Parts: sequence; structure tokens; C-alpha cells
Amino acid sequence: MKETAENITLKKINALESILGKSFSVLDDGFVRVIDYMGSDASIVQAARVSYGEGTKKIRQDRELIRYLMRHNHTSPFEMCEIKLHVRVPMDTWRQWIRHRTANVNEYSTRYSVAIDAAQKTEPDQWRLQSKSNRQGSSGKADESVGKQLTQEEQKFHSLAREVYDDRLKAGIAREQARKDLPLSTYTEAYWKIDLNNLLHFLRLRMDEHAQYEIRCYANVIGNEIVSRWCPLSWEAFLDYRMNSVVFSSAEQTILKWIGRGEITKAIEVAVQYGWLVKTNRALKPHLERSEFEQKLKRVGLPVPWKKSK
Amino acid sequence: MKETAENITLKKINALESILGKSFSVLDDGFVRVIDYMGSDASIVQAARVSYGEGTKKIRQDRELIRYLMRHNHTSPFEMCEIKLHVRVPMDTWRQWIRHRTANVNEYSTRYSVAIDAAQKTEPDQWRLQSKSNRQGSSGKADESVGKQLTQEEQKFHSLAREVYDDRLKAGIAREQARKDLPLSTYTEAYWKIDLNNLLHFLRLRMDEHAQYEIRCYANVIGNEIVSRWCPLSWEAFLDYRMNSVVFSSAEQTILKWIGRGEITKAIEVAVQYGWLVKTNRALKPHLERSEFEQKLKRVGLPVPWKKSK
Amino acid sequence: MKETAENITLKKINALESILGKSFSVLDDGFVRVIDYMGSDASIVQAARVSYGEGTKKIRQDRELIRYLMRHNHTSPFEMCEIKLHVRVPMDTWRQWIRHRTANVNEYSTRYSVAIDAAQKTEPDQWRLQSKSNRQGSSGKADESVGKQLTQEEQKFHSLAREVYDDRLKAGIAREQARKDLPLSTYTEAYWKIDLNNLLHFLRLRMDEHAQYEIRCYANVIGNEIVSRWCPLSWEAFLDYRMNSVVFSSAEQTILKWIGRGEITKAIEVAVQYGWLVKTNRALKPHLERSEFEQKLKRVGLPVPWKKSK
Amino acid sequence: MKETAENITLKKINALESILGKSFSVLDDGFVRVIDYMGSDASIVQAARVSYGEGTKKIRQDRELIRYLMRHNHTSPFEMCEIKLHVRVPMDTWRQWIRHRTANVNEYSTRYSVAIDAAQKTEPDQWRLQSKSNRQGSSGKADESVGKQLTQEEQKFHSLAREVYDDRLKAGIAREQARKDLPLSTYTEAYWKIDLNNLLHFLRLRMDEHAQYEIRCYANVIGNEIVSRWCPLSWEAFLDYRMNSVVFSSAEQTILKWIGRGEITKAIEVAVQYGWLVKTNRALKPHLERSEFEQKLKRVGLPVPWKKSK
Repeated sequence: MKETAENITLKKINALESILGKSFSVLDDGFVRVIDYMGSDASIVQAARVSYGEGTKKIRQDRELIRYLMRHNHTSPFEMCEIKLHVRVPMDTWRQWIRHRTANVNEYSTRYSVAIDAAQKTEPDQWRLQSKSNRQGSSGKADESVGKQLTQEEQKFHSLAREVYDDRLKAGIAREQARKDLPLSTYTEAYWKIDLNNLLHFLRLRMDEHAQYEIRCYANVIGNEIVSRWCPLSWEAFLDYRMNSVVFSSAEQTILKWIGRGEITKAIEVAVQYGWLVKTNRALKPHLERSEFEQKLKRVGLPVPWKKSK
Repeated sequence: MKETAENITLKKINALESILGKSFSVLDDGFVRVIDYMGSDASIVQAARVSYGEGTKKIRQDRELIRYLMRHNHTSPFEMCEIKLHVRVPMDTWRQWIRHRTANVNEYSTRYSVAIDAAQKTEPDQWRLQSKSNRQGSSGKADESVGKQLTQEEQKFHSLAREVYDDRLKAGIAREQARKDLPLSTYTEAYWKIDLNNLLHFLRLRMDEHAQYEIRCYANVIGNEIVSRWCPLSWEAFLDYRMNSVVFSSAEQTILKWIGRGEITKAIEVAVQYGWLVKTNRALKPHLERSEFEQKLKRVGLPVPWKKSK
Repeated sequence: MKETAENITLKKINALESILGKSFSVLDDGFVRVIDYMGSDASIVQAARVSYGEGTKKIRQDRELIRYLMRHNHTSPFEMCEIKLHVRVPMDTWRQWIRHRTANVNEYSTRYSVAIDAAQKTEPDQWRLQSKSNRQGSSGKADESVGKQLTQEEQKFHSLAREVYDDRLKAGIAREQARKDLPLSTYTEAYWKIDLNNLLHFLRLRMDEHAQYEIRCYANVIGNEIVSRWCPLSWEAFLDYRMNSVVFSSAEQTILKWIGRGEITKAIEVAVQYGWLVKTNRALKPHLERSEFEQKLKRVGLPVPWKKSK
Repeated sequence: MKETAENITLKKINALESILGKSFSVLDDGFVRVIDYMGSDASIVQAARVSYGEGTKKIRQDRELIRYLMRHNHTSPFEMCEIKLHVRVPMDTWRQWIRHRTANVNEYSTRYSVAIDAAQKTEPDQWRLQSKSNRQGSSGKADESVGKQLTQEEQKFHSLAREVYDDRLKAGIAREQARKDLPLSTYTEAYWKIDLNNLLHFLRLRMDEHAQYEIRCYANVIGNEIVSRWCPLSWEAFLDYRMNSVVFSSAEQTILKWIGRGEITKAIEVAVQYGWLVKTNRALKPHLERSEFEQKLKRVGLPVPWKKSK
């Protein structure tokens, strides 16, 4: 007997119920936990059927309906699910997080209360080097000897920062002003409430390998530990059609066509026209869009026309 | 023993639970029913306390905290509550409803399915006359003899409209095109999901006496039957501080000051300066802002300076 | 000399300036015209450079920067451009249009004023048949003899609808109530203001071949006549990376890999596992996702493993 | 001859044009400047007239129409105006600013570029004391001897913070990680684009005397220097009907009625019922809502029933 979304969800809701309130640790002192939620895969199906009418019930099973919605960007039924998280995050990471404007937020107020006495610490082997190919990324780790020094410097700095803060409070300075020199690594907490559609959008951007490591840690926990339990059919569809999909631009499709016909020379000619194959000395000049295309070809198992197969 | 929001809400949640799925009739063939919800007065208090810190717990009881938040437009904690309704509404009313952009919506699709075979009917004694003072309102009812004729004409028109629609469907015309001449009175259905803060904003505008009668009927049911059970403390605060509040502009405050000092002549002088007291023949020329002020004075029991007390 | 966005935009702004206020006709009595706008391709580049710093200036030309932003869904710089349109649209189409919640809207009020005396008419050769493969689409046209009848019926119905409306107004009925039976084909007008990022999202959905014909007509005019002149570099990038891109799911990538290696039997095996190749009698049972994949293979010039090449 | 919005705006646009790009200094090293804008008072009038029809043209002058819209919370026409600012703000202030979700934002990226080398400094006479009556506010200044010490400590701390940051960069650490301990006082820059309706909402909250001093400085500049020039009629209406209005709750109206009738004893009785007049020893126990009401009575020149007039 084929399971319907109602059945599957029923079992999986239990899976989410069982982690309600449970803290998932993230970074050295952060966490994510589910406070409340509304809806499930079954609610998405229900909402889609109001839009598409009873007819859909007969012709499509629940799982396929959810996959169809995801594949065709019919996003509104996914908005029928809502989740509320309690998170503890370094302010630096929170600065990126809060840029997603479609959530409801109540953050711990350091005007009202004394700032949380915790800052994100970096272990000696966790200092990441500036990426050379990607101006906004990191790549590799610093030598541990260097890392050790930086970690020591950090420790002292964190202590001092707290001292400065405490000195101000002791002098009777208003909390709203005393906090002005807290380091961005200081932890904050918030309730964060969002619908599933917007959450998946957040996850797509923040689980991406180009997202900063810290926020990626949070996104991975939210996706893999929480959404996967909450709406398993939607999560599966999201991974298949969004997270792990590959997109070819119209330019890339033109090259693909020549590859498909086995006309490698033609494929190269087109790439030359695009300015993707400029030579400097003997090597190809780096070209971002070209190398992105090469990676995509690799993912779908097709040959790169301008690379000799070994 | 003073009750906390937790206690009160617990009891009241039951009140909402007991109407879950229940249809409240609106107009001749419409309805509103709660499908799902998340949060309660207690969630608002909880969210506020994350923002304002533990300190608040001691100094303020739950009810007072909610009232404080409402009074000072600290709206974000109210966003922590979410509700999902299933509504059946004439398309004409839906056109106004959908202008509120902060909700999630899945509407019955007449591209996908045959349109609902119901249109809002008007009884002979329910035809409203055009208001003369308010270009966008109605005032009074048409004579029932006139109303009888209009209702008959309407009945015939509704039948014909459905005939035209059915003729198209029988001829194999696509539903998306066949529907083009459905009257605005045709009922549609939708799931409508919104957070409490935005719902209260909707209610404030749509429960207002200037809102059109039809949407007001829906808003009254949502407010009085649903929100009042769901978040009773917030509802009470909303009525006190928003719905039934009265606002005086800076100009009006100036006049109030003279009234307060008993200087009626001065009060009149200021109103003259504002251009509120222009005479035509013997009567005062109608002036919208002045008459709004007069109504407000009446509400707070203060005398209208330019009207003789009887 | 390579042109910068500043140069190109300067010339193209003139192109937009030259159509400011000009009505582009859509359908039988609709239009779209640009009332005002803010920003250009150059503003997007400027905003991106605040985010990404001066460094980007040296390493990337304007056109490439815009293409990079579009390709990687760095959408916020596109929000720096804003456009205000004046549109005249049948209410039926407007019902779809208004579902996009990220725009600012002022619609003609039929509470305040008498409804526009125009309804969208359908010519005898313009009646579309219900699609059989797509429940929410149309396919082909009705015979003109049938179309002629339907068009005549429509004409009469439109006249009658207006008569009913006028009768009510003559009887002094409030406009807000008299309008309740206007057909959905009645034209309305609105100012519609939106940023470029959200406009492109609207266009992607509404220029799509699955969008309803009527709204597609509007979307095509907005895209091809207006955005193409306003932000030509963004428009080009949008067409390449969004509108005309092709997306392969992770399942499809698995099949692609076998095709790439020339292992057709393996490719078929995988498709069988997915349930894409169920046979009924002698033919393959229709399967939506499979046929979508076949179309994509065709677009990139790759063979469909389970189809014999001719 | 009475001026129309068109005339007035024309002149005032020049006023805004004349400050386009001009930096208004805020705090010790911040600024606000207008980069671009769209619309004016005249656009609001134009949009309102699409909604309300030509009829309005005759009966209401432009200024009165704008005032009517503002007074009755008909907010959508104000969304037709859009402005883009370039701001330089301490990150601490930016954390409050960014909570307004209805704006478009591109912020300077410290992943991409080296952080701005400036932090907000506090002069010895600018250290504010924690308010005792308002947990989230400040009140009065610290002694300058204390302030001097705090300022010295701050200077040293700022130097050290930059040293730590530079040490990391020199060690090749990725900018995205090196920045983690920047103090919240570090300046950031952003383009910030918002429509007039949402901007006025922002200003109402952030020009309020309870808003933190720093963000209030920015809000005052935006309001008084920019909006006042951009849309002078809307600005005037905003000050009269929103910023400087006074709101009486339904409870307060009940007391007002007794005051109006001169029945002071009754007024006091009602306040007692509300729990506003609890005595401890000889004085009244502090009660927030009561003291807010007292302030409002003062603003409109009415006597506080439970206070003896001198």
C-alpha cells in the first residue's frame, strides 16, 4: 500500500515532536532549537488541492504533488507551514542572518539586559586563510603555530572587552551605550519564526558552500536535523530540485549541443567567441564563468571540450 | 491568586480548540473557519521577555506586559502567533481582502477547476443607497419595492451568467478563458495564513465603520469569534488601545488646550484660523476635519466650542 | 574601447526616457505605460561595489559584474532600481497580477467612481480549447463557427451586465454594492510600482509559456519593450541565466552521467527505477517528469535514451 | 491664487535636487546623503486620484487630500515615492536600523573588503547614565572625571581592537573570520532604499524620544533635512497627525468624560478601579500607564484629577 502524505507526516511529526525544545549545539557555544511549528507535508498537499481542485487528488499521489510543486516553483503552498526557532548565534553571524527579511524576529535586547557573557572563540587549528580565487571566501587553515598566537591574542582581547564593558556598567553607564564596543563575536539570542518556503530559500543560500562557515553550520543543522524531520517529502524534493540541481545558461546550452553531437571543435569555437578561452603564455587565462561551466560538466559526467581526456 | 498568561491562555486555547474546523457563516453563503494556529498570549509574553530580558518578569504581570506592548506599538512579539483560516468569500470582497500583502494565500483556482456555483445574492431589503457625505460609502436602504425589482433582475442575471459560463465549458473552451465573465459576486475559497500583528492591522481597517459592509462582516467574525478566543489578552488590549482609541492631531490639541482652560472664544479663534469655520448663509460650511473633531469631542465628553449647549 | 555600464546606460536611459508616458497597447483595450523610474544598470553596479568593495572595480567590467550577480542570485543590487507603471487590465488578469505581493499598488476604486465602461472582448477566432495534458492550460482554438456564437453571446452578456449595473446606479444604489455583478472581464486601472529584482521574478513566472495568455501579453510588453530599454545589461543577463536557462535535478544528473558515458542501457535502468518508464500495452505510460526531462534533453541536444533515433 | 501640489512640489524638488549627494554629518564620523529619489507630493496626489477617481479633484485641494490620506491611514499612495540614501553608521546603530524589513539594502561587505578603519568615539562629557525609570533608556550624563577615564579606556581599546584585526590580516587570515572581534562601534556603510510610507513609519519610531540617541540623530536628519524638502506637504501632515498626535485609550476616554463634566471624584473613582492609584505610605505607587496619561493630559491642557492644582 502506497503511503499518503497524511500517513507519512503523521509518523514524522512524531519525529519533530520528539525534538521539540531540544538544543542542537552549533559552534562553541551556540544552539538551535524548535519552539513551535504549524503544518506539515500534509498541509502543503491540502493547500495545493484548494488551488488545483479535487481533480488533482485522483491523478497524483501526495509525494508526486509535492515534487511537482517544488519543481515548478509553485511556492505558495509551502508558505502554509511555519516554524519558530530559538537560536543562539554570534552577532557577526546574526548580521548575515537578519538580512533575510521575511522572518519574524525577537532578539535579546542589550538595551534592556546585560549582554550575554560569551563570545565565539577560535581554536588554534581553526583559523582560516583568505582564499585567493574567491575574494569573499576562505581556503585552508593557518599553521597551528600562527593559530596558537592568534587564539591567545583573542582570549586576552575577549577578556579585555568584557572588562571595558563591565567598567562602564559599574560606572552607571546606560546599557545601550556601554555595549557599543562589544566584539561582533559576542553571542546573542533570538526567536526566529519563518514559513517553510522562505526557510528553504534561506537554506539554499546559507547551506551553499560559498556561504560563510559559521552560518553554514547553523543552516546545516536547521536543514538536516529539523526540516528533514518536519516535512520529509518537501525536504527530499528541495534537495533534488533546488539544492543539488544544476543550471545551464542559454550560452552553456549552445556549447552542450555541440558536445552532444560530438562536434568538439565547434564547441570550442563557441567558447572562444564568448571570450572564455583567452590564452596567456601557454595556459588558459582564468575565467570564472568558464570554470563554473567545467564544474557543471563534471557533475553531469560530460567532457570538457578544451581539456584533453587522460 | 493572580492568573498568569500561561494559565489564562491554557483555558482559552481550549476555547479555540473547541471551534477548530467549525464554520462561522458570513453573508448568504460564505464562511470562515480556523484550520490551524500557532502560539497564544503566552508566546507573546515569552517573545517579549527574550527581548526585554528576565528583568521584566518580576516587575510586570503578563496582562500588563501585553498591554504595554500594544500601547507602545512594540509589535514584533505579536508576530510570534500565526493562524490559518479557510474562507469562502465573494470575489468582490476578496479583491479588497487580497490587498493586504502580508498574508500567505492559496486560492481556489478557476483555471484548474470549474468555478464554484454560487454568487452572493442580495435580498430586496438589503440594497444600500449611495452615501451623499461619503463618496465611497453607503447610507440607508432602497425602498423595498425598488429592492424587489433589483433582486429579481439580479436573480435572472446570475442564472444567465452561469448559462454563459456553462455554454463555454460545453463547447470545450478552456476554464481559464470561460471564466472571464463570471460576476464579481461569485464565491471563491482560500486558505489565508497570517500572523497576529498583521491580522490586527487588517481587523483595525476592516472592522472600521467606513469599511464596506461585506468585508466588515468577515472581519467581525474573525475578531469577535476567533481572535477573542485565541489570544484574549491581546484582543482586549487591541480593543482598548487601537480599535477604540481616539487620536488628536497637534492642531486639535491646541484647541483642546483652550477648551481645558475654559477659553471658548480662543478655541473658536484657532478653529477659524484653520479654516474650519467658514460660514455660508447662516450655517457653517461642511468641513470634514472639523466634523471629525466634533465627533471626537463627543466621544471624550468635551463640549464643541462653536455649538451652543442645549 | 570597452563600454562601461555608465556609458551604455546613459544611451539606453534615453531609450526609456523616449517612451516615458507612452501607452503600449495590450489585448483589445488594455495598456502599459511607464510613469516614472529610478536607477539603471549603473545603479546596480554601484550598489554591488558598495557590498563587494572597490576591489571589484579593477577586476571586473560592468557587464560581467551584472552577469555575475544574476548568475549567482545576488539579488539585492537589482532591488536598487524601481519602476512605476500605469496599467489597464481586465479584472480577471488583475486577480493573478495582484498575487505578487512585493509591489506597491493604487487601483482605480469602483467604490469611489463609476466602473470603467469596457470589458475584454473575445474575437470569434480567439476562443481557446481546454488543454487535455495540462489541467490549467489551453491548447488550440475552437472552430470559428462555435467561436462566432460564443462571441455573440458574450456581446449580449456584456451589454446586459452594464445595463444591470446602470439600473442599480440609477436607483441610487451605492457604487460599492452596484458593482457586485460586474463581469471579471471588466477593465480596471492601477499604478503599479516595483523594484527590478521583484519585477524580474514576476516576468519569469508570467512570461513563461504556462502562464495564462492574457497576463503573458502584459509580461511580454513589460519585459521586451520596457525592461530591455531600462536596464539592458540586466535584461540580457536575465534572459541568459534565468528565463532561458535549463535546470537538471539530481535524479536527472544521474541519467545524464550515463548518457555522457554512452551507457544507454544504464541510463534506461535508472529511469526504470524512478518509475518513469512504465509500459501500458505497447506505449509508455505518460509521465510528467519524464517528458519534461525529454524536452530538456532536446534543448541541450542530447539523445533521449529510451527513444530510437531516426 | 492657491498653490497646487504640482507647483509647490516643483519648487521643493529643487530644494531636494540642491542637496543631492550632499553629506549630512551625523555623530562623530557618520553621514546620510541622498543618492536618488522618485516621486514627490504630486505623485501621492496622482496615485490617490487613480484610486478615488476624478471626483476628488474638484472637491479637494492637493494639500487637503494629502492631509486626509495621512489622517485616515490611507497609506498606499505614500508608497509611490521612493528614496535611496547612502549612510555611514556604527554597526551598533545599524543593528537597530536593519530591523526595519521593508527597505532594500546593500551594505559594505567586510568579507570582501577590509573593514572601515573608524569606530564611534565617545567624548568625556557624552557618557550617558542608565535610566532608573526606563530599563531600556538613559538619563543624564556621567561626571566628566568618570567620562574622561572611560574615554581613555575606549581609545586604548579601539587601538587594540584594530591591532588584533590587522594582526590577523597580516597572518593571512580570511577577512570573513578576521572581522569577528571588531567592536560594534565600527562604522559600516550602506545604500538604503525605502518608500515614503515605510520611511515615515521608521521615522515615527526612531525620532521618538524613547529611541536610542544615536539612531535618533540619523532619523532627525533624514526627517528634518531630507523628507521635509522632498515631500513638504506629506511631512507637515506626518508631524500633525502622527508624530505629534496624542492617543487616548478607551479607558482614558472614560476618565476624560468625567473630567469634561467637572466630576473629579468620579474620574478618580474610575482610576482607582483601573488600579492606577495605589498608595504606598503617603505617596502614590508609580504606575506607568497612569503617568503616561498624566503627560497626555498636560499636553492637551487638562487637569490631572488626582493632583492638587497649585
